Amino acid sequence: MKREETVDYHIKSAWHAISRMYNQEAAEEGFTTAIGFVLININSKDGTPATKIAPKLGLETRSLTRMLKTMEEKGLIFKKPDLVDKRSVRIYLTEEGKRKKEISVNTIREFNEQVREVVSEDELHAFFNVFEKIQLVIDQVQTTKGVDINKPIFEL
Amino acid sequence: MKREETVDYHIKSAWHAISRMYNQEAAEEGFTTAIGFVLININSKDGTPATKIAPKLGLETRSLTRMLKTMEEKGLIFKKPDLVDKRSVRIYLTEEGKRKKEISVNTIREFNEQVREVVSEDELHAFFNVFEKIQLVIDQVQTTKGVDINKPIFEL
Repeated sequence: MKREETVDYHIKSAWHAISRMYNQEAAEEGFTTAIGFVLININSKDGTPATKIAPKLGLETRSLTRMLKTMEEKGLIFKKPDLVDKRSVRIYLTEEGKRKKEISVNTIREFNEQVREVVSEDELHAFFNVFEKIQLVIDQVQTTKGVDINKPIFEL
Repeated sequence: MKREETVDYHIKSAWHAISRMYNQEAAEEGFTTAIGFVLININSKDGTPATKIAPKLGLETRSLTRMLKTMEEKGLIFKKPDLVDKRSVRIYLTEEGKRKKEISVNTIREFNEQVREVVSEDELHAFFNVFEKIQLVIDQVQTTKGVDINKPIFEL
């Protein structure tokens, strides 16, 4: 089996290419792909509990904490105690954070629209379907090995 | 467009899941996915010029240099001046490096064989075909923006 015939090679290369492209867009506005992905996971109106952000991104809590600190210093977010659960912290977007979230959302939307111009609905459906099957294989491998499949150990 | 309907969401999630799975296999043997990918890009018999490894992995030279240092300390590789181009360095695998390369190759092969048990040849062909189209869109975006599409700026 040649490297180019493996699914992981295609997935890895594509993710690096997309991430690099998003990063170039973000860099023009002084942020990064990683920050953009955090921003799109924070509710613009009601904020989002800090504990809910990391799992959405497959990030370790420690990595997210570091990123949120950077984002606070850059004036993109601010923290407030949660009104319901006072022990927990809620993350809110500043006006600048909202602006950069919008840029991120638009960048993602534009790219996906361009992809949909050249990839048909049927092709896209089949594409997502293969991803589902790959996820099933991964779940099966990890169940067999008895590891915690939900534990995020990777950074963006 | 919901996040789950975007191609980047599927590609990103799948890469993180695969990378995490490979990392768990590698961790049992005291190495990482990132090291495994470097190992599989070094020729077991003739070694590989250091300068040829980074581009294959989409790695920055600086990141690779750091990784090669770690790998040398772990006794997986050693460096020798290139016989042809004496200014450049060639990376060779130690016996332990060869052993861990074989583990990496087997892990990748096993996973891909399991995927091929549930994904047909036709589905796989269509899957790779969509990746090609996505790459064309990325190339087009970056040509329009006039950025260097070959510059690796991301780490594994």
